[in-house]
Amino acid sequence: MPQLGFLPRRACAALLSQMLRPPRAACLPAVCCHSQVAEVMLTSQLKPHQEKPNFIIKTPKGTRDLSPQQMVVREKILDMVISCFKRHGAQGLDTPAFELKETLTEKYNEQSGLIYDLEDQGGELLSLRYDLTVPFARYLAMNKLKKMKRYQVGKVWRRESPTIVQGRYREFYQCDFDIAGQFDPMIPDAECLKIMCEILSGLQLGDFLIKVNDRRIVDGIFAVCGVPESKFRTICASMDKLDKISWKDVRHEMVAKKGLAPEVADRIGDYVQHHGGISLVEQMLQDPRLSQSEQALEGLKSLKLLFEYLTLFRITEKISFDLSLARGLDYYTGVIYEAVLLQPPAAGEEPLHVGSVAAGGRYDELVAMFNPKGHKVPCVGLSIGVERIFHIVEQRMKTFGEKVRTTETQVFVATPQKNFLQERLKLIAELWDAGIKAEMLYKNDPKLLTQLHYCENTGIPLVVIIGEQEQQEGVIKLRSVATREEVIKREHLVAEIQRRVSQP
Amino acid sequence: MPQLGFLPRRACAALLSQMLRPPRAACLPAVCCHSQVAEVMLTSQLKPHQEKPNFIIKTPKGTRDLSPQQMVVREKILDMVISCFKRHGAQGLDTPAFELKETLTEKYNEQSGLIYDLEDQGGELLSLRYDLTVPFARYLAMNKLKKMKRYQVGKVWRRESPTIVQGRYREFYQCDFDIAGQFDPMIPDAECLKIMCEILSGLQLGDFLIKVNDRRIVDGIFAVCGVPESKFRTICASMDKLDKISWKDVRHEMVAKKGLAPEVADRIGDYVQHHGGISLVEQMLQDPRLSQSEQALEGLKSLKLLFEYLTLFRITEKISFDLSLARGLDYYTGVIYEAVLLQPPAAGEEPLHVGSVAAGGRYDELVAMFNPKGHKVPCVGLSIGVERIFHIVEQRMKTFGEKVRTTETQVFVATPQKNFLQERLKLIAELWDAGIKAEMLYKNDPKLLTQLHYCENTGIPLVVIIGEQEQQEGVIKLRSVATREEVIKREHLVAEIQRRVSQP
Repeated sequence: MPQLGFLPRRACAALLSQMLRPPRAACLPAVCCHSQVAEVMLTSQLKPHQEKPNFIIKTPKGTRDLSPQQMVVREKILDMVISCFKRHGAQGLDTPAFELKETLTEKYNEQSGLIYDLEDQGGELLSLRYDLTVPFARYLAMNKLKKMKRYQVGKVWRRESPTIVQGRYREFYQCDFDIAGQFDPMIPDAECLKIMCEILSGLQLGDFLIKVNDRRIVDGIFAVCGVPESKFRTICASMDKLDKISWKDVRHEMVAKKGLAPEVADRIGDYVQHHGGISLVEQMLQDPRLSQSEQALEGLKSLKLLFEYLTLFRITEKISFDLSLARGLDYYTGVIYEAVLLQPPAAGEEPLHVGSVAAGGRYDELVAMFNPKGHKVPCVGLSIGVERIFHIVEQRMKTFGEKVRTTETQVFVATPQKNFLQERLKLIAELWDAGIKAEMLYKNDPKLLTQLHYCENTGIPLVVIIGEQEQQEGVIKLRSVATREEVIKREHLVAEIQRRVSQP
Repeated sequence: MPQLGFLPRRACAALLSQMLRPPRAACLPAVCCHSQVAEVMLTSQLKPHQEKPNFIIKTPKGTRDLSPQQMVVREKILDMVISCFKRHGAQGLDTPAFELKETLTEKYNEQSGLIYDLEDQGGELLSLRYDLTVPFARYLAMNKLKKMKRYQVGKVWRRESPTIVQGRYREFYQCDFDIAGQFDPMIPDAECLKIMCEILSGLQLGDFLIKVNDRRIVDGIFAVCGVPESKFRTICASMDKLDKISWKDVRHEMVAKKGLAPEVADRIGDYVQHHGGISLVEQMLQDPRLSQSEQALEGLKSLKLLFEYLTLFRITEKISFDLSLARGLDYYTGVIYEAVLLQPPAAGEEPLHVGSVAAGGRYDELVAMFNPKGHKVPCVGLSIGVERIFHIVEQRMKTFGEKVRTTETQVFVATPQKNFLQERLKLIAELWDAGIKAEMLYKNDPKLLTQLHYCENTGIPLVVIIGEQEQQEGVIKLRSVATREEVIKREHLVAEIQRRVSQP
């Protein structure tokens, strides 16, 4: 039963590993106990003086509260992701939850309908941010920054049909890392893939694969297969669904809904079934039809260089050049990537249909859209799908009944006697002032058993006991839940606690 | 020039103190360099294929981006606040950015007009949260929780006229700590005041005072002075402005706008000028007029008990019983409090008109408003006005030209020769894999001087240098910016760096 909470930060990685791997014995189920309640709807009777007698108490559709248990898991995951971003030299950035509506317009292709707009209450027209990439590009342009390596962690909002069972919500966190600036080809791009590998390995989610393609190769395929240029983006959006629906269904959408000639769709179909390593890049460079496209050639040459760098980073076995990868967003211009988990579900676990857990790509034109003179700032970046990762970790903890501590309290101040409130208040203030994490019950005369049960239930490791005898003798009882009880001098208490809690 | 970033967490307090106190010598101004740019508006020419030729690039009115420099300051402050909340045994909680509109309705008195509504795009009517208190109460009721000690840090939104110069925004962070549950009187209330003292002392913002009153005393004064009960809340809202405008103006609002009889207003005026300590509580308990009000007596007896506990916590010198304190929000039912800074501006600083920096109170009826059977869950809590605290710290750093590191990079990988990209990539991957924070330039053949300048500008303390000679001899040059250069064996590099960065 790993107990998280007051451990030093350097123990996090070890702990996370404990959390993620099934423990030998199953314990009490703890995580998610509130998340299910989010589904419960209550009808509420308001007080007489209020107009509306009934309404439903719930969170908005597609959103949820995070209980203390869930917050502990989330914090550990975010800590690990952010520490990786910092390891790669990223600076922090924060942008508002909403942007001017026109800042977001025409950046998201067919997904624009999913943007939440704010009501026009007089003033500017505003929309909730849809991702962290467009606000970053707006920030660069507004501040005339030519280069920046930044990370940002924050909520974004999309009015999608929520499939909560798969960890998809309308409000969710994104953790983004981006490198903006004019640099030599594929060096920052390779670093982005290295970061994805570090994070997904570090989180121990099981085996994973990062699919890589290039928007120029996608467009090149469209061009040589005969897609009219005006249909590139919409056909790309259809192709993006290949990880969720079959080629047959995607082909149907292309032909029936988007008016593509069947033979053009079939030619595309011949390409999108290919995936492999550097040798597939070489093979496609020789492809008689594809090599007629200048932009496809550029994309393929870029990928060749990328694979060279990935070899130096020793991560090529995690990378697959996949011609079916399209990425739906409008703003990508070069290399694109998406990480998926490969792990088959273990016995007793629900199958994990979580889709991609990390994704990103190169977007060299986006900043220029915000610049009055159209100055370009090339960018490449990635986004970690922490919400899905939470979902996986939670599922696993639920299955194996793992328990986490939701507080970091180190010491509990107890008394076996009545009329010791004043002493307890004086004592606990002294502990707080010394930086010790301490709690007591908010009762004048609590029973000793109630106090000790509280420690047990919340996992507090130390108990300080003060009663008449101790007070007379100027001592304190210090009881360690794990070991034994000791009587120590009153004036040594703070130092003794500090000694104990600093031990690993 | 204190350099924040890769120091261990325990050094934070010391560092914050450095940041907050003026350094002996003024250095480069760094913080806020982007925040001013938020005012700049650019007119942007979009690419030809797009419809709208011009629009303004800015953040929405009353909002701002936080630059990396600002993020460092914010993180240090939030870390200190959260660690205090955890020291007092609080659990974390997160709730959605928006709630059902009706969840927020009738909780905020005359401030309801400041709530941001989302556009009706089909589905539920939603509003952005206005504080973290109402969502907490909704969470308790929805999950049928009878007690909980929780903290929450998150953005809230209010459509106020922003006075950005005073650190007031339409989007801002709140840091809340609340204790829900039926306990013995005034013990949790006293802890809330203790927490406010710990945080404001810990942040070293200078001298401060916490004004304390009780909503029952306010109502009692209104009753004995002859305010009609139907006007209690609206007169209370006027009284709440006493920290911003004079009694004369408040009186005018009460009489001219809210139709209060002048003699009633004058009677209120006699009370609201009083402030003091426990002796004022005793004096008011004897006040012939006020003691006629049952609820005023209850409030005064509560404050008497509160002062007893504050004496045990040794914080009475920071507390002032202030009869003018009203707190505008509708939901308070008992003790209320508000912390203000007392420090006169130092030479060279702008006067700090920041209003209250922390506030809170008891709200025993709010949870019942969400409960179908009206079950009560008494609550008391506080909110730290971190936005204003950021403003103060930023102002001070600006005045004294302090510089902060915005990255935590420990090692830079450099080369003096051409054609060493591959070696640098291999080397830096090795450092990353060992958990070392490392950067290099994204250039095939950067100049050595450019590389060393980068280290200097960003404050990276160690440089690893690899060139032809080093490669032949199987060694690496490790240069410490602070001390000297050493040549060490290639295979010892990771261990040597780890030894150096772990030194205090």
